[in-house]
Amino acid sequence: MHSLPTAVVGASGYAGLELTRLLARHPRLRPIALLSDRWAGDSAGDRLALPAPCATLRYRALGEAAEVDAEIAFLATPAEVSLQLAPRLLARGVRVVDLSGAFRLADASLYPPWYGFEHAAAPLLAEARYGLPELARAQLAGARLVTNPGCYATATAMAIAPLVRSGLVSPDGIAVAAMSGVSGAGRKASEDYSFCEVDEDLRAYRVGKHQHVPEIEQTVARFAGTCGAISFTPHLAPIRRGILATCTLRLAPGAAAGELARVFEHAYAGEPFVRVLPAERVAVRDVARTNRVHLGVAIDARAGVAVAVSAIDNLVKGAAGQAVQALNAAMGWDETLGLDLLGG
Amino acid sequence: MHSLPTAVVGASGYAGLELTRLLARHPRLRPIALLSDRWAGDSAGDRLALPAPCATLRYRALGEAAEVDAEIAFLATPAEVSLQLAPRLLARGVRVVDLSGAFRLADASLYPPWYGFEHAAAPLLAEARYGLPELARAQLAGARLVTNPGCYATATAMAIAPLVRSGLVSPDGIAVAAMSGVSGAGRKASEDYSFCEVDEDLRAYRVGKHQHVPEIEQTVARFAGTCGAISFTPHLAPIRRGILATCTLRLAPGAAAGELARVFEHAYAGEPFVRVLPAERVAVRDVARTNRVHLGVAIDARAGVAVAVSAIDNLVKGAAGQAVQALNAAMGWDETLGLDLLGG
Amino acid sequence: MHSLPTAVVGASGYAGLELTRLLARHPRLRPIALLSDRWAGDSAGDRLALPAPCATLRYRALGEAAEVDAEIAFLATPAEVSLQLAPRLLARGVRVVDLSGAFRLADASLYPPWYGFEHAAAPLLAEARYGLPELARAQLAGARLVTNPGCYATATAMAIAPLVRSGLVSPDGIAVAAMSGVSGAGRKASEDYSFCEVDEDLRAYRVGKHQHVPEIEQTVARFAGTCGAISFTPHLAPIRRGILATCTLRLAPGAAAGELARVFEHAYAGEPFVRVLPAERVAVRDVARTNRVHLGVAIDARAGVAVAVSAIDNLVKGAAGQAVQALNAAMGWDETLGLDLLGG
Amino acid sequence: MHSLPTAVVGASGYAGLELTRLLARHPRLRPIALLSDRWAGDSAGDRLALPAPCATLRYRALGEAAEVDAEIAFLATPAEVSLQLAPRLLARGVRVVDLSGAFRLADASLYPPWYGFEHAAAPLLAEARYGLPELARAQLAGARLVTNPGCYATATAMAIAPLVRSGLVSPDGIAVAAMSGVSGAGRKASEDYSFCEVDEDLRAYRVGKHQHVPEIEQTVARFAGTCGAISFTPHLAPIRRGILATCTLRLAPGAAAGELARVFEHAYAGEPFVRVLPAERVAVRDVARTNRVHLGVAIDARAGVAVAVSAIDNLVKGAAGQAVQALNAAMGWDETLGLDLLGG
Repeated sequence: MHSLPTAVVGASGYAGLELTRLLARHPRLRPIALLSDRWAGDSAGDRLALPAPCATLRYRALGEAAEVDAEIAFLATPAEVSLQLAPRLLARGVRVVDLSGAFRLADASLYPPWYGFEHAAAPLLAEARYGLPELARAQLAGARLVTNPGCYATATAMAIAPLVRSGLVSPDGIAVAAMSGVSGAGRKASEDYSFCEVDEDLRAYRVGKHQHVPEIEQTVARFAGTCGAISFTPHLAPIRRGILATCTLRLAPGAAAGELARVFEHAYAGEPFVRVLPAERVAVRDVARTNRVHLGVAIDARAGVAVAVSAIDNLVKGAAGQAVQALNAAMGWDETLGLDLLGG
Repeated sequence: MHSLPTAVVGASGYAGLELTRLLARHPRLRPIALLSDRWAGDSAGDRLALPAPCATLRYRALGEAAEVDAEIAFLATPAEVSLQLAPRLLARGVRVVDLSGAFRLADASLYPPWYGFEHAAAPLLAEARYGLPELARAQLAGARLVTNPGCYATATAMAIAPLVRSGLVSPDGIAVAAMSGVSGAGRKASEDYSFCEVDEDLRAYRVGKHQHVPEIEQTVARFAGTCGAISFTPHLAPIRRGILATCTLRLAPGAAAGELARVFEHAYAGEPFVRVLPAERVAVRDVARTNRVHLGVAIDARAGVAVAVSAIDNLVKGAAGQAVQALNAAMGWDETLGLDLLGG
Repeated sequence: MHSLPTAVVGASGYAGLELTRLLARHPRLRPIALLSDRWAGDSAGDRLALPAPCATLRYRALGEAAEVDAEIAFLATPAEVSLQLAPRLLARGVRVVDLSGAFRLADASLYPPWYGFEHAAAPLLAEARYGLPELARAQLAGARLVTNPGCYATATAMAIAPLVRSGLVSPDGIAVAAMSGVSGAGRKASEDYSFCEVDEDLRAYRVGKHQHVPEIEQTVARFAGTCGAISFTPHLAPIRRGILATCTLRLAPGAAAGELARVFEHAYAGEPFVRVLPAERVAVRDVARTNRVHLGVAIDARAGVAVAVSAIDNLVKGAAGQAVQALNAAMGWDETLGLDLLGG
Repeated sequence: MHSLPTAVVGASGYAGLELTRLLARHPRLRPIALLSDRWAGDSAGDRLALPAPCATLRYRALGEAAEVDAEIAFLATPAEVSLQLAPRLLARGVRVVDLSGAFRLADASLYPPWYGFEHAAAPLLAEARYGLPELARAQLAGARLVTNPGCYATATAMAIAPLVRSGLVSPDGIAVAAMSGVSGAGRKASEDYSFCEVDEDLRAYRVGKHQHVPEIEQTVARFAGTCGAISFTPHLAPIRRGILATCTLRLAPGAAAGELARVFEHAYAGEPFVRVLPAERVAVRDVARTNRVHLGVAIDARAGVAVAVSAIDNLVKGAAGQAVQALNAAMGWDETLGLDLLGG
């Protein structure tokens, strides 16, 4: 079977590491370049447990990224870096899967308030295809630029979008409390994310200001036709990986518990990576190191709300695994290629 | 200074341990009986680092609880046990501080749906005084039966009640996501709470069904005059102790961010155990092992909500520390007695 | 490719879970029976993320184990259960890989002092082949009864045996301090292994009395020709999985640091699962969820000792992974079958 | 009661924080200056839960340390900083307790190989008194310069010294494996000590090269009259605080288990902070946040060794608590002053 030469840019961050592991075992992709300033010059096999061909690769400096001889490039880089690299790679005919937020929002005017920069490559926003197959599969076929969803956005939109589309809950007044493992903050020297500061702690951060908020609203609106302003509160929890998103939605009059669970079952029927469970059996532990999404919904008729809970691994379904799944979809391959052997 | 002979019933559970530590250093209380079947016969000094007089006590069987020669008894027992013990101790003239939920709800009809039992001592519900001094100090003076608030109820009601009373948020549509450390589940042999099951996991539980819900609503309604049905989703997090409660409330028209923070500052002015902070600086780590409550509120004008965040130690302000504080209030003592030396 | 019907007995313990995950993806083995009283009746796909054929299996009661229609049975059961089952399965022509200690010690007289029971199937001890391929590959070919090494024994013997054989260190006076994750204690309801008891704690246990001690000594003596009595102190650490073994050995006169590292490199040349590193780069994190052993040795000439450090995942190389590797060796297959896709 | 004006230099590191908490509640000391560049200008009450007078202090820049108007200065600074500051403070008549290693080794020639610098204030080494009261109380009375022991040195020397002095074990061939929580690495931005790197990991570091080794040997030799070269292997464990030291010592001919435990009981009779327990009941959890040392010893007659285990909190008995205890001893006060209210 022919395999495509593939580059991972930003290969030593947590998402980049996960990508490297996945691509090294993908039957149709062949990593030929791993770029990372942190480990430039080191061999990949010294840093990770990899199968043979990949193990002999040496990390190259990030500065060489635009010149790699790959057909496919995964960018696990900060948005600012992706903004520079993606146009250059696309211009050279390289298919790009970008894991940053650089191309996620269709409306360029949302970048200054949410990302803090003017978007320098706005025309690409129209070309970018949102890589969340379960909610946006149709547009992915043949995509040249896949913009990989944010981790919180994946967990949250997958829980909210089908319920809003069903009409059983209101598109307004949605409140989300989400908890993430520390790897979501990236790999870096930081006192704030040191073991002693994070261990045994819980806290909220960026209340109402997280940059995934407009992405969630955009995704829900595309899928469900409508979405009010969502209140989103992310939290930091002392785990390495995983996200749990708890979404409280106002019930439409007359909605019944069984109906809501059926909405999930129907929306995700046949999806290889989605499992619908009772809300209280949705747990980060069960999806860790898999590309799975576990979803559940409970009704609190007394309070007039539905509570939808979703769990993903922020580095897999929330980053590297989904990037592979979306690339598979873009190529017309089985979406589970390279992901089917993952298991908790 | 005269000190009162005091008993701790259920002294080897996590709340009971914390109580023992606190009472052993309280200037006006003198532990004379520690009751625990788990450690019956052992000396307290073998189990805990305690100052001299307390260290020589021996744990006694729980069955002796009703006969202890104490003036004050703290019950750190399951609700079913407290229901049996409290009337017998009160009848013998012992002042009782009960840490279970047995006497928290004024309306006996709420016990079957939320606690799963018919209340066998309903007349005592009217006599019990709710031990949350910051919200209900006035009624505590001279109390013979103090019912100590639930841990979630403390964290949540303290965040919600002043905001609702201010009129700046709606009493309806309140959604709470709260996360608790594992000690909240009590001390017991259980596969579910074993290290391997809990470590690196996050999950929701008892969605909309936690027994602290009616207690929160009762407390807010008493303080603020009104309270809608609250949606409450508790979560289990891999920390030993601590609760973070994130409360999303609908803003009343025209409410401004600064106003909301001032509501907290005004409501808790002069409170020795409360600190008002920016919402994102509220962290479990900073209140662990103290009787403090850290509170903050942020406004998300776009979504039309206020997000109030509170943190407590579930075993101190959420159990043993608050029990001591409430007893201090009941006795007319300085509320910080025995608690002033606690510090992170 | 023909695949052999395989049973996992004790499939819901931590080693059994890991085995199920591995066997479900093994190209030459086909799980046809999963036995577990805990989950009897449940479908495997409800409990684990498994590929299709395996996901539809239903757990069966342990009592049916002796009757399974498998060609191969992995026993992830307590020694007492394995002692009963193995003879019955062998009598029916089933090839058995036993993960317990029931058949590890060649000398039946060691069972009463170290395991606390008289060995009821002593003749089988001579037939059992020790499943540590890197140190005892030759005897594994065609084995009908593979006795899978203990987790501590694997980590420790692999660090000690080549050094003793080299003559560069003394076979006497070896002191081992090993640390294990909590999954080593098995899956069970226990206050001792509850999150609140284990988290943020470190302690030694079974000092000098762990049942892996005679196994380590037997393995080293077989490989190196000699072994003194080893001092072995296991510790419990707050991690889910992994073992780090730190072995202090007396240097023979004139031994040099470079020589010792070369002993490891030579002993394990070509071994697909072994990596020799500087002692301070050996870390549990890097072997977690892999079948790898990381090994390093440092010399402290001042103190006249070599310090060898090894790391394994107690559930993979210390249990399920090694069981698969040893079965592969017994069958004459590539030892990496079913294990090559594992990666941290 | 008169209280002495006291300065804490390096007040925002983990040891400095602990010192601030302790001194704020010490009946004979009165913090008047807290120095920390990290928090210069902030009020102490904003950073820590402190009683009133201390809460109003503002952190001052480290550069002002030599000029503080204190009678007593605790230096929780790196050795290089302490080397500069201590002579200047002593010259101004300030009594100094230094928590770094700057003055711990009596033999200046040991600094280059173990600490990496030539000692610039060698005459002070003779004046410095080693602040480990349980092993070196006599020399502390009236000390002007107390050099506070290292955390590993405290845990290890307290386990080894009495046994060597007893003659029941050999002073040669001692092997120590010690595990420390991450706070032992200090407070700093570092990828190596980030949550994601440390969580779920175990590893050895500085094998045979830790700078506490000569300190341990010096302490044992002073107390016991003799000490061979000790093999010392420190490990990093995923806990915030605490050290467990496991020391393997060769038994002298004829030594019996009971005798060894009695050595500990005799050596530490009447010590308020020491508890002798069975070796397997010595646990970090039980000493966390206390100034206690838990010690135990087991005999492995088969291997001809004694295994002594000790546990301390590295930030309390291993740093701030011991500094207070030693200052108390130097001043002729009850050694438990300011420490008696600590309790797990």
